[in-house]
Amino acid sequence: MRLAVLGAGAVGSSVAELAGDYGHTVTALADSRSAVLDPEGIDVGSALDRKEREGVVGDADPEEALAGTYDVLVEATPTTLGDAQPGFGHLRAALERDRHVVFANKGPVAERYADVRALERESGGTVLMEATVGGAMGYEHVLAEAQDLGVAEADPSFDVEGTDAALKCTILANVLAEGGREYTLEDATVEGIKSLPGSALELANEDGRTIRLIGEVSDGEVRVGPRLVPAYGALAVTGTRNIVQLETEHAGQLNVSGRGAGGPETATAVLADVDRLDS
Amino acid sequence: MRLAVLGAGAVGSSVAELAGDYGHTVTALADSRSAVLDPEGIDVGSALDRKEREGVVGDADPEEALAGTYDVLVEATPTTLGDAQPGFGHLRAALERDRHVVFANKGPVAERYADVRALERESGGTVLMEATVGGAMGYEHVLAEAQDLGVAEADPSFDVEGTDAALKCTILANVLAEGGREYTLEDATVEGIKSLPGSALELANEDGRTIRLIGEVSDGEVRVGPRLVPAYGALAVTGTRNIVQLETEHAGQLNVSGRGAGGPETATAVLADVDRLDS
Repeated sequence: MRLAVLGAGAVGSSVAELAGDYGHTVTALADSRSAVLDPEGIDVGSALDRKEREGVVGDADPEEALAGTYDVLVEATPTTLGDAQPGFGHLRAALERDRHVVFANKGPVAERYADVRALERESGGTVLMEATVGGAMGYEHVLAEAQDLGVAEADPSFDVEGTDAALKCTILANVLAEGGREYTLEDATVEGIKSLPGSALELANEDGRTIRLIGEVSDGEVRVGPRLVPAYGALAVTGTRNIVQLETEHAGQLNVSGRGAGGPETATAVLADVDRLDS
Repeated sequence: MRLAVLGAGAVGSSVAELAGDYGHTVTALADSRSAVLDPEGIDVGSALDRKEREGVVGDADPEEALAGTYDVLVEATPTTLGDAQPGFGHLRAALERDRHVVFANKGPVAERYADVRALERESGGTVLMEATVGGAMGYEHVLAEAQDLGVAEADPSFDVEGTDAALKCTILANVLAEGGREYTLEDATVEGIKSLPGSALELANEDGRTIRLIGEVSDGEVRVGPRLVPAYGALAVTGTRNIVQLETEHAGQLNVSGRGAGGPETATAVLADVDRLDS
């Protein structure tokens, strides 16, 4: 498939770098200020080198990437709230041209899910979003390190205030509702971990427990907040590791865990979506 | 979809009982001695009641179920080794009629994978097998309880000698090889837990570790045996819980865990396959 990648941060760069390994061609790469395009495939390495040296990937206008040659638009610009722009506009432009859209950006699918699906229905393109829900990470004391590693949200308050977890749970709630009801961030009850006293973790420890930021989606409710969990239990994941726990009717509890952040890790979710479109 | 269910043990019974909830119709149910058929849908409850009272589900010959009206043959007879009969013959009969086959029986897909795929290519039917690999369970001291609960293999030596784990790993190796190489049980190095001295577990405990029966598939090798694992780590699952751990090139380690045995749990995997055929 031919990919136009919007966003050249940790995720967009990784998607562009790994696309070739998965048999795809990157025909456009754009950051917020510039773009590089070639219908035959751009030179990803030199575009990212230039980004590092000069702060831009190329000489073209970023809007040109939207109008170029591609089968799939990979939307990996930073998550924004409210009107979810410019991500939502990028979606609309691609779907109007009957192109597929794969989101890494959580904004449009969390904040305007019904609009996204309505535009998709009118288009020959398909919208996928696996990369938007890898789990949730948090905790102020690992935040500095996380930012060094490039795995924290562009806006760090998204992590510590629980917004990132709430966005992911909102997306999950929409997917689970299968169009039966639309959820936005306003439907979520969100409590972050910023105001949690240090003594809380010590008290939890004495009791064989620890504290994690947990998002819950059930029976039409979306709740995010610090929760006490068993210190050695499945939910006590560390580092950038996330876990999704599903309570099923007949199959009991299913757990899926893996790294919930990081450029290459998130890029594999984007490229798995691209493969789904290809088959 | 119309389902013919072969096998009325824990898994076959659960598939028949739950099929209606998932929007499907059971047109045949067979045990090793009898069958009940109705192209409009059988009365599952009374067939299973009769099975409990009289040891048979109906008055028809079990072979009639194969020749009846159905879209999907659910093969849930006990796993046998060597020629994997009668499961393999059931597969052939269904594919010759261009019907789909969903396996819960591990024998045919572990022992004759290439033959299964060859017959599938000549047929209009598709073969799916999610239910054959839920993981592996074992340990002699939970075996009696497991048999009471109906979650142990029909042949208990399959659990304690590592055969069940080896079958699952052989199936996984075949699926991962994508036809590049065929694996059978002979390619697996298998060590069970039967001969493990009781003191081994105590020694492991002193060191903060425990012992689990682990099957490994990597670089063309299939190995099953008792392994030392961290006592509170992801691999130290208990009860009927299984875990599959995937080492990926770009996404790090992914874990998927859930109940690896039990009628309703396995039936949900069968019915998920049926849904895949339906879409």
